[in-house]
Amino acid sequence: MGNWEQNVRRVTPYVPGEQPKQENIIKLNTNENPYPPSPALKKAWQQMDLEKMRLYPDPAASELVTAIAETYGVKESQVFAGVGSDDVLAMAFLTFFNSERPILFPDITYSFYDVWAELFRIPYRQIPLNDRFEIIKEDYFAENGGIVFPNPNAPTGVELPVSDIEAIIAANQNTVVIVDEAYVDFGTISVLPLIEKYDNLLVVQTFSKSRSLAGLRIGYAFGSEKLIKYLNDAKYSFNSYTMSRPSVLMGAAVVRDQEYFTETIHKIISTRERMKKELAGLGFVFADSKSNFLFVTHPQYSAKELFAQLKEAGIFVRYFEKPRIDRYLRITVGTDEEMDCLLNFLKEKCTGVFL
Amino acid sequence: MGNWEQNVRRVTPYVPGEQPKQENIIKLNTNENPYPPSPALKKAWQQMDLEKMRLYPDPAASELVTAIAETYGVKESQVFAGVGSDDVLAMAFLTFFNSERPILFPDITYSFYDVWAELFRIPYRQIPLNDRFEIIKEDYFAENGGIVFPNPNAPTGVELPVSDIEAIIAANQNTVVIVDEAYVDFGTISVLPLIEKYDNLLVVQTFSKSRSLAGLRIGYAFGSEKLIKYLNDAKYSFNSYTMSRPSVLMGAAVVRDQEYFTETIHKIISTRERMKKELAGLGFVFADSKSNFLFVTHPQYSAKELFAQLKEAGIFVRYFEKPRIDRYLRITVGTDEEMDCLLNFLKEKCTGVFL
Repeated sequence: MGNWEQNVRRVTPYVPGEQPKQENIIKLNTNENPYPPSPALKKAWQQMDLEKMRLYPDPAASELVTAIAETYGVKESQVFAGVGSDDVLAMAFLTFFNSERPILFPDITYSFYDVWAELFRIPYRQIPLNDRFEIIKEDYFAENGGIVFPNPNAPTGVELPVSDIEAIIAANQNTVVIVDEAYVDFGTISVLPLIEKYDNLLVVQTFSKSRSLAGLRIGYAFGSEKLIKYLNDAKYSFNSYTMSRPSVLMGAAVVRDQEYFTETIHKIISTRERMKKELAGLGFVFADSKSNFLFVTHPQYSAKELFAQLKEAGIFVRYFEKPRIDRYLRITVGTDEEMDCLLNFLKEKCTGVFL
Repeated sequence: MGNWEQNVRRVTPYVPGEQPKQENIIKLNTNENPYPPSPALKKAWQQMDLEKMRLYPDPAASELVTAIAETYGVKESQVFAGVGSDDVLAMAFLTFFNSERPILFPDITYSFYDVWAELFRIPYRQIPLNDRFEIIKEDYFAENGGIVFPNPNAPTGVELPVSDIEAIIAANQNTVVIVDEAYVDFGTISVLPLIEKYDNLLVVQTFSKSRSLAGLRIGYAFGSEKLIKYLNDAKYSFNSYTMSRPSVLMGAAVVRDQEYFTETIHKIISTRERMKKELAGLGFVFADSKSNFLFVTHPQYSAKELFAQLKEAGIFVRYFEKPRIDRYLRITVGTDEEMDCLLNFLKEKCTGVFL
């Protein structure tokens, strides 16, 4: 045995949200959509030509890119598609964050940003949110090698107004600004129109939440034609064929069904607003989430313990053992029935333990 | 407009083999399998639970990993799966080639190795094949940060004997040796058994060629439990959910159908051997390919021109405008009917032009 291990890249292994295999649990831990995908999925599935699976997919995923471009009213050359928004974001980090200056992102944010920065050896600086978990735009008026943040932010659900985002972009014309809109469809205004004004803005979205398609792994980005061309060049040189045929075909069909999409979104938003009232009534404290999850804390109760108790009761939520947020739980907005189960559990707890 | 473009990573854009959209062409340019995937694919497709597409896939792709482990008689902990062997190889480069010393690979080889090395800023040294396009094992007894080569090599199709590969591994116990077996099923002996003896050996294979599943994007690797653990750690920290649900389910079903697999392979090998005789008869010169393609040159004819003429006739083959191989064409072994079309075209050419 030699010492080859000395050359291995050591990473802090990321622990993904559990994907438990048992049925009959209430899964509120990875922000999936509680409703099934659009019926358009079934049609596309039925029409799939299995013999064609022997052939490589179209490297440009044109069918999907066209469907996204048409749905959002942009040019195909302004759309990039990848294997989930993680793939799109990672590719964007690699392509655009290529300077000696640090990239900037919030201290409390999507947990992959620092991991990708380390993986690609990109210097970075994490900027603290304020005590209300808000991004302060002026903090991003500093010299940097790029900027990335989610809107609404994760895992807080807090929205940054479009005017603040535009101020950040306007102040940073010499680097690329990535706005990660994974949760934008649940009530935040997208900055997509700004790609016509700022050629350094990349807007990233996903089919995993609002389109109920986490299982197909589809993410995408909007940007100026220049930006998208750079992304595609990097992608082709790294792995030309990333999107499988089924994902391209089924994704294209689903994104065109705007009616079902809107209907689903409205159901989730209405459940979320109801939950806010109910949870506030139980003494939970939280910011005004604009996403499909709530990020809650309770003054009298340990989040870590509650997380474990919920899990034992078959209700999976997410807990991050990290500075500043270790008293919080992130709860995905499920169906009304799922939320009622959660509330019943919490009410019993609250009567028995909290109060 | 600012100068954000100065921070963009410039790559030499890779031009993937064309994936023409018109039907009625003979596609011999990207080494796809001419036969449809195993009938097991259809069964798995029928059983797919579309409602589950709303959920993230299993990050470990366990169903697929188990099917591969059982098929090849290894432990699940010795198997890693990814989005095509390109994804697996790129992840292995990132994970294992993390030294200041150059990694080694042949000068004529799979065209992504140098691109990944540049992308991840890994120093590398390309070692010339000899004039018969063979890898000389002693060339790899030098100090290095890792070694990678395909067996059989691409685009030459030339095999390196297992004893030579073992000599390379044995001489390099302090770095990871990756043997890229994308084409191994077409008649080369796999070094898979050596993973029990050398914990620094990673053997990479794919479903894209011998399993007729290029459209599903499935690659995999065998290695010691240590090696696979490092790969998974890196993968989870980079993008946990890479394999889509359809690919995991359908891939697992297909790999278990060994009978269809063996039958298909034999058909391709027999067509390849016939082609060797026919092409030799037309004056083509080539090494003894053990893959599903032939890498051929003709002393009296320009490969570049022949490539263009074939394309005009609806027959797509591959031409690389690169030093040492710019007189060669890479021709995928198709069905017997497809090969007859190609031969008819060449025979006419040969009578008219060459002879």
